[in-house]
Amino acid sequence: MCVGLDPVLERLPAGLSGTPTEQIEQWCIGVLEAVVEHTPAVKPQLACFERYGAEGYAVYERVVSFAKSLGLIVIADGKRGDIGLSSAHYAAGMLAGDQAADALTVNAYLGADGLEPFADAAQPAGAGLFALVRTSNTGGDALQGLALADGRTVSQAVAQIVADLGASKPGYIGESGYSLLGAVVGATKPQDAAVLRDLMPQQLFLVPGFGAQGGGPEDVKACFKPDGTGAIITASRSVIFAHEQAPDKDWRLAVGQAAAEFNRQVASILK
Amino acid sequence: MCVGLDPVLERLPAGLSGTPTEQIEQWCIGVLEAVVEHTPAVKPQLACFERYGAEGYAVYERVVSFAKSLGLIVIADGKRGDIGLSSAHYAAGMLAGDQAADALTVNAYLGADGLEPFADAAQPAGAGLFALVRTSNTGGDALQGLALADGRTVSQAVAQIVADLGASKPGYIGESGYSLLGAVVGATKPQDAAVLRDLMPQQLFLVPGFGAQGGGPEDVKACFKPDGTGAIITASRSVIFAHEQAPDKDWRLAVGQAAAEFNRQVASILK
Repeated sequence: MCVGLDPVLERLPAGLSGTPTEQIEQWCIGVLEAVVEHTPAVKPQLACFERYGAEGYAVYERVVSFAKSLGLIVIADGKRGDIGLSSAHYAAGMLAGDQAADALTVNAYLGADGLEPFADAAQPAGAGLFALVRTSNTGGDALQGLALADGRTVSQAVAQIVADLGASKPGYIGESGYSLLGAVVGATKPQDAAVLRDLMPQQLFLVPGFGAQGGGPEDVKACFKPDGTGAIITASRSVIFAHEQAPDKDWRLAVGQAAAEFNRQVASILK
Repeated sequence: MCVGLDPVLERLPAGLSGTPTEQIEQWCIGVLEAVVEHTPAVKPQLACFERYGAEGYAVYERVVSFAKSLGLIVIADGKRGDIGLSSAHYAAGMLAGDQAADALTVNAYLGADGLEPFADAAQPAGAGLFALVRTSNTGGDALQGLALADGRTVSQAVAQIVADLGASKPGYIGESGYSLLGAVVGATKPQDAAVLRDLMPQQLFLVPGFGAQGGGPEDVKACFKPDGTGAIITASRSVIFAHEQAPDKDWRLAVGQAAAEFNRQVASILK
């Protein structure tokens, strides 16, 4: 499981102080402390930090450092995508150095040679990538679900590119048999997930959309392999904004309890 | 025309001083001063700045401010793409406020509802967007050129999404008849460009790949409309790293001369 960290100023609980970025930083620290005993991984949404420019980016870096000091795995949700040296630069900025995340989400629309420099930079850093294959929004359906002349869908073609590139160099595959290049597969498309699971046997799936975005335990089952590995289920708003449903509770307590409940739900999928 | 600003430390000319980000900032300022009399627009590549984290992001913001103080149009080449509030946050960070660029490149793989929040944030800011439709790299071909069951290609389907969304609200279309939502169409695919030009009559095309990446004047002609409007031709390395071909010249002089030559080439397309 993984808790998405999407700071939205207007939805933060009362009692934080200072500038918008100071409030965001305090809140992120509080959320990380509240969820750390319930989740192995967190996923900061870059857009929420970049909204505040260089100042927001500095907060992002400190939040990543703090999360790593707690022992959390950090998946930077930046959905970056470019080609050549630009891809390598994004990967170097996000996945190497003191404030490095452990993994980065990337966009595959530029194809295999756009993804390869990310993978080549991630490998020596011991980091991972999750390429967007299938998203759970209506507009994602309209494009990614289009039928190709060869009978596949667009997202299945992207899945094949990801599977092929992810196994194209020995160093891309770890001891577990999984590739450093994983896939983002939305939680609200169980029928698609089963096909994508077959197409990408060596990909870890990052599965957003659990909870507030609509997916439930049954919807994500197909993202796992029969041995119970292979998927990381993420929830964001249903956990981090849990104070909205429990206005009388301390918000840290509400977030911690929501993370614990999310943990139980994910565990129940695997039973 | 538009000059791409892709600072790569290893390729900067001799004579710069300080830390990597200080050298990059000095060089960007010098390039902007050298090209301003030859080009209306510049396109900083976000990856080259983000490579250096928050420090690089701060340099990016100062470079954008300086470019705007010179009267240049700034197209932020960030290729951002997300959904909902995250798209809106990226747009707010990049296109509003003191260090706002005039336009941002975006990725359309998440579909129309991923792009719409960008457009809704760009409109009140008087800013624009360029959605990736067709890129000129080999991997882009392999995915974007796939044939759909309905006879179109993947990139043509994306073009239709861009054309439809770009005309979906009256405020999206300016006095010129062009939409605030434009399209990135690579310079090395003239045969594709003509079809895409027909599919997207209200889109300005941002056309990378001129010069060092392989496209010449004949290759980009199809991106223009018959009246000579509708395309922004960009060149990066052939202009900004012109000192590599003229080691005895002052690098600023070499860059300025290369920008002037690029200007003449673009003008010759329209004759």
